[in-house]
Amino acid sequence: MKKSEFSFIGDIATMFGPLAHHGFEPIGDDCTVLDMGDDALVMTTDMLVEDVHFLRSASSAEEVGRKSLMVNLSDVAAMGARPIASLLSIALPEDAQGQWSEGFMRGYYEASHETGVALVGGDTTASRDRISINVVAIGRAPKHNIKRRSAAEAGDVICVTGKLGTSSKGLVDIMFGDLNTAAARHHRVAQARIAEGTWLGARPEVHAMMDISDGIASDILHIMELSGVGADIELSAIPTDYDIRFATTGGEDYELLLTVAAESYPTVAEALLKATGTTLTAIGRTTQSGELRWMQDGTPTDVDLKGFTHF
Amino acid sequence: MKKSEFSFIGDIATMFGPLAHHGFEPIGDDCTVLDMGDDALVMTTDMLVEDVHFLRSASSAEEVGRKSLMVNLSDVAAMGARPIASLLSIALPEDAQGQWSEGFMRGYYEASHETGVALVGGDTTASRDRISINVVAIGRAPKHNIKRRSAAEAGDVICVTGKLGTSSKGLVDIMFGDLNTAAARHHRVAQARIAEGTWLGARPEVHAMMDISDGIASDILHIMELSGVGADIELSAIPTDYDIRFATTGGEDYELLLTVAAESYPTVAEALLKATGTTLTAIGRTTQSGELRWMQDGTPTDVDLKGFTHF
Repeated sequence: MKKSEFSFIGDIATMFGPLAHHGFEPIGDDCTVLDMGDDALVMTTDMLVEDVHFLRSASSAEEVGRKSLMVNLSDVAAMGARPIASLLSIALPEDAQGQWSEGFMRGYYEASHETGVALVGGDTTASRDRISINVVAIGRAPKHNIKRRSAAEAGDVICVTGKLGTSSKGLVDIMFGDLNTAAARHHRVAQARIAEGTWLGARPEVHAMMDISDGIASDILHIMELSGVGADIELSAIPTDYDIRFATTGGEDYELLLTVAAESYPTVAEALLKATGTTLTAIGRTTQSGELRWMQDGTPTDVDLKGFTHF
Repeated sequence: MKKSEFSFIGDIATMFGPLAHHGFEPIGDDCTVLDMGDDALVMTTDMLVEDVHFLRSASSAEEVGRKSLMVNLSDVAAMGARPIASLLSIALPEDAQGQWSEGFMRGYYEASHETGVALVGGDTTASRDRISINVVAIGRAPKHNIKRRSAAEAGDVICVTGKLGTSSKGLVDIMFGDLNTAAARHHRVAQARIAEGTWLGARPEVHAMMDISDGIASDILHIMELSGVGADIELSAIPTDYDIRFATTGGEDYELLLTVAAESYPTVAEALLKATGTTLTAIGRTTQSGELRWMQDGTPTDVDLKGFTHF
């Protein structure tokens, strides 16, 4: 359970904290982790609601189906685990029970097939007017591969996979009616960094890892808080084709944000590129201060960047 | 994933069947089952939508919170497993983000505390107008304790725990404005048969088991189909305080429906009563015919009983 959404999430963690955990780790990361012996099982869940997370007029049913699964697989991969299965619940109003639901399932199936993820359970029901979708993704990894937000060390290199800001630039394009720009297509066809997350999970030099769903300006705060570190981020180093505001505060990139032991960054980046074809870019350093500082060419700069909020 | 709700569920099972299962059993029971070595993990999910599954005017927020968890714990217990954890997703319109959501969480917490179930993850988000809730329940048991709908054998005694029909009688009372009859209170305060399910799971004489969510007239068909057996059910034997239609086609009883090796029924029933205080009543026999026959004092009778449908 991410702590970003409602203020009462904090109260929930306090309320339920004293209950027996039965081998599960406490709430706080992309996924919950269950100790299975040599392996760990990770689980995450995400709810998508029509007219909050998607519009039937702007996204095809196939795209919504694909994205519903991919955003959850992204959370699993960000733990360093391989996604293996999903559970899907869907509430459909009458006007979505035919063509729309079939398109949705095609998109969901394509993403499942592409990533080798089984559909192992779920629920379908009616709703009065709007579509609600809930997906649970389950992953598995050797226990020591699991990457937590709390594992960053001061002096680590902060890195990101791929390029940032494309998805939020695409969302703006779509809002202006440009549905077929490269960025708009990227936004509509969500892609989780599964091969990269699984590969990075197996590298002990990688310390903390999470996926970028709300923009690094907001997401880095979770690593800072749970690891007790600060962060200096160099704006000019952030890999993007668009405005820096998209790249820092734009949501839904589903790239990975991670910290790597400084001396190992060059070899990890080179080996990741070779293994997956994906670039790993250094954008800053974790520090001993508790502060987040934005740097421009090595000098702290006074910008106010906030993360993306869904509502 | 239960097969009752939409016709396209069958298509989904066919579509996803060929994908690798990664140790999960195929769709078809109350819960999906993951082999963990000596133990099995079971998982189930259920979505509740405002104005389809509950009305804010008829149920308190606490009752909805409690019921959201209990209906899922019932599915776990019906597999013979002990519920250990849950994941909760909730989409809240603005007018439910204060008092209602806090009442909901109190009810959810009370049910969690009472049953020793941890809350290990979830998602909270906004919705435009109606509340959507999705709960995942996770259980664990020694692998050989897991009870499946497919395990009934011809000649088994068909049994149910407790009494049937109370919840649907209560729903009718509520619809007529009688919110405080014994049946109405029973309907509003859902109670899963957790101690009973876990206890019955450990008895090898118990063959098939499931929970009664749609009424035995509909639920017995799942055991018949998956086990390849028929069933003779004696109407006069069905334990109920109300009309036989409530007891056979009324939903949401959350009692257990099971089949037991005939020679072992008396000892199992006696031991269950001693261990949990709950009565196990024999209501019929599985047969080699594929048919469901309703009997009145041992003679087939011509009634047309259908299960409860949520919409």
